[in-house]
Amino acid sequence: MQKPVLLITLTVLSLLSAAQTEDEKFIRKIFDEALTSGKAFEVLEYMCTNIGPRLSGSPGAAAAVEYTRQVMQHYGFDSVWLQPIMVPHWVRGKPETGRIVNSKKLGMQPVNVCALGGSVGTGPAGVLAGVVEVRSWDELKKLGEQGRVKGKIVFFNRPMDPRVLQTFSAYGTAVDQRANGASEAAKFGAVAALVRSMSPNPEDYPHTGSLRYALNVPKIPAAAIATNHADLLSRLLADDPNLQFYLEMHCETLPDAPSFNVVGELRGSENPKNYIVVGGHLDSWDLGQGAHDDGAGCVQSIEALRILRSLGYKPRHTLRAVMFMNEENGLRGGLEYARAAAERKEVHIAAIESDRGGFVPRGFTVPTTAAAKAKVQSWKPLLEPYGVHDFSTEGGGADISPLAPQGVPLLGLLPDSQRYFSYHHTPEDTIDKVDRRELALGAAAMAAMVYLIDRYGLK
Amino acid sequence: MQKPVLLITLTVLSLLSAAQTEDEKFIRKIFDEALTSGKAFEVLEYMCTNIGPRLSGSPGAAAAVEYTRQVMQHYGFDSVWLQPIMVPHWVRGKPETGRIVNSKKLGMQPVNVCALGGSVGTGPAGVLAGVVEVRSWDELKKLGEQGRVKGKIVFFNRPMDPRVLQTFSAYGTAVDQRANGASEAAKFGAVAALVRSMSPNPEDYPHTGSLRYALNVPKIPAAAIATNHADLLSRLLADDPNLQFYLEMHCETLPDAPSFNVVGELRGSENPKNYIVVGGHLDSWDLGQGAHDDGAGCVQSIEALRILRSLGYKPRHTLRAVMFMNEENGLRGGLEYARAAAERKEVHIAAIESDRGGFVPRGFTVPTTAAAKAKVQSWKPLLEPYGVHDFSTEGGGADISPLAPQGVPLLGLLPDSQRYFSYHHTPEDTIDKVDRRELALGAAAMAAMVYLIDRYGLK
Repeated sequence: MQKPVLLITLTVLSLLSAAQTEDEKFIRKIFDEALTSGKAFEVLEYMCTNIGPRLSGSPGAAAAVEYTRQVMQHYGFDSVWLQPIMVPHWVRGKPETGRIVNSKKLGMQPVNVCALGGSVGTGPAGVLAGVVEVRSWDELKKLGEQGRVKGKIVFFNRPMDPRVLQTFSAYGTAVDQRANGASEAAKFGAVAALVRSMSPNPEDYPHTGSLRYALNVPKIPAAAIATNHADLLSRLLADDPNLQFYLEMHCETLPDAPSFNVVGELRGSENPKNYIVVGGHLDSWDLGQGAHDDGAGCVQSIEALRILRSLGYKPRHTLRAVMFMNEENGLRGGLEYARAAAERKEVHIAAIESDRGGFVPRGFTVPTTAAAKAKVQSWKPLLEPYGVHDFSTEGGGADISPLAPQGVPLLGLLPDSQRYFSYHHTPEDTIDKVDRRELALGAAAMAAMVYLIDRYGLK
Repeated sequence: MQKPVLLITLTVLSLLSAAQTEDEKFIRKIFDEALTSGKAFEVLEYMCTNIGPRLSGSPGAAAAVEYTRQVMQHYGFDSVWLQPIMVPHWVRGKPETGRIVNSKKLGMQPVNVCALGGSVGTGPAGVLAGVVEVRSWDELKKLGEQGRVKGKIVFFNRPMDPRVLQTFSAYGTAVDQRANGASEAAKFGAVAALVRSMSPNPEDYPHTGSLRYALNVPKIPAAAIATNHADLLSRLLADDPNLQFYLEMHCETLPDAPSFNVVGELRGSENPKNYIVVGGHLDSWDLGQGAHDDGAGCVQSIEALRILRSLGYKPRHTLRAVMFMNEENGLRGGLEYARAAAERKEVHIAAIESDRGGFVPRGFTVPTTAAAKAKVQSWKPLLEPYGVHDFSTEGGGADISPLAPQGVPLLGLLPDSQRYFSYHHTPEDTIDKVDRRELALGAAAMAAMVYLIDRYGLK
């Protein structure tokens, strides 16, 4: 009775190990292709250098739509198409002015600020007012109820905690100030909001990013201030609570503009109506070149499919590289993609996002459901030789999040996070901050994950 | 009979777990100190920006000796002293000239070259000769024996394999061309050597680095050529084997110059005559600022001791931060340190080197002896929360290698290696390529390793 069981076991084991070896070999080919003939860096370099910033509604965003469409067409993907959407159209206008004024110690001191995305402007006369510094919502409430916020600029100065190893976690515990600060301050009669830039580092340049105005609350101007200048302002305020701040911003929101998601496909040979999506977002902030955020994720998504195609891989399911538009200030692309998918009854087997920068890959964020998560984690031995070893965090990314209600397992590329917030939403997010090998390894890791999901599913 | 055993086991386990918790807490403090009040980046920034390159024998090297001495003094280390040595003194002179000439396709084409460290010059008239390309020693030998090398410039064009994940491994299989190419070519009558730069990437700038002339072989000039230009030269040669190359280099070797290792100490409270060394090398190549190679390792070594001191840690053994001089072209500092240690009968419990760049730390290279290796590997759970997870590679670093015959366990900080060879030995190795957090995390990892070795030894 033992023998047949043993035989079956041995057969199963040897089949499994043959598959393992075949997978190992194919994944090796994927990485070899990315490291010897990879195109991700050149595509990103073109996008950063020749197109530059790509804020939703800008000519740069339109150029990036057309450029990535052409790249995927040129690679010979089975179909490349545009998915029309309307996007918010916010413009920064003339550079902002920020000054500490009437400080006892320094008199007038210019500081580096930038408008938060979506903010109203100050008007040409600017805003001149006293400053109230807060580090928590409780503090704001207390001061507000004491009438000490009215007519003032509220300065949100809770830092991104540098001690937190995963910088995205530290970001998550500070970004509420940027998102909600303006409206929360306005509820107590503030005339403007200044928010400490989202960075754990001492820096002279500010970080932009979107805010959300609450309904039925006056919209007040809101700016980010460089961390070094936030520290300066805080020190000066401690000495001299009566100093004033001058803020001038010329930003405004124009009518919504037409734009697109860009989709490239490799058609599935067995289940063409089942989809695996890899994507990043094509829009960027207007400062810098959007190299890491998220040009990297876009070119890696295209590259993942290019690699599989160039290796002659015939996918079972249809593979899609999606350049989502408008992640930064609206998520219109992600929402429309999910809406249209539901309407067409498309079955999505998985969606993988790369929106954490083009740094050396260390793992993947994994689906929240037990079975899919276990499946992804079981592939760790296949990816560990490439430094991809961390499969502990759950979740996907913003653009693919609207697919969650359809039960789509969501994953994300997890690159090393240490450098990300040195560049995020700043003029420093440029192509010279991207390393060719790190970018290529991320693209290869995504291609390998697509291959494994295509072959084995996530059930 | 069971009970006492159980009790003892429980007591031991609870003691072990108390120690574990204490270690966990202290290591957390180390990382917090590095990430909130770290000084490594500022020290490196000063060294890169105000001192710049620090080739052995140069005024920059002397400035760096004095600067790091002052930094450690300023930190209040128990003693800071200089260990005198004599170092080779090679100078590059006027910038080099490299040109492809008489190429059928391009006529004259300037290419980017730089002299290899230690090379003789060409004389003011330069060298003009035909080119023979080789990718292996066998190929050189074959062509040499056919008389096809005599009077020619040998072009060593075996690339650093981009497919190898650990870039130091790829370097190890290509750098023999740089080290030995000139003399091997000279044995067959070559007049100069051109070596493809040690980089896996397409680049327009050459990588310098030292060569070794063999005894009793004519010394011929040797230069590195940028990888993009190596590819160009190779393509042109394929079409036109008769093209020529013009090389002009003004480098020369001057008499040995006086210099120093710089040593800072925190005195041990229990065994002050037992030492734990952390170190990097203070000298750099003359191109760039030696930011990653190896300014990073120096400032991390100083920072590791500064952190422990600032946390009030009383070491059992004496801790030394050593800035070794002359790793790049002689190893005189490392040799003298080991010689003097033997002479004074100093017992070294461990030596840890950081000479793989200031990138995000991923692990440590571990001692070769089983017991010490197992001990280091047993600490993995304490360091894994900080992304330091790889303890699989054996070995230390060049500067501490002369301690090996004394039986000293050697370790090395193991940062992520993907970016290193984009900068190594080039004008690109500058402070803007160093990330503050990555550098700080490496210093903290070293401090944690010193703490664990100091507390538990390596036996």
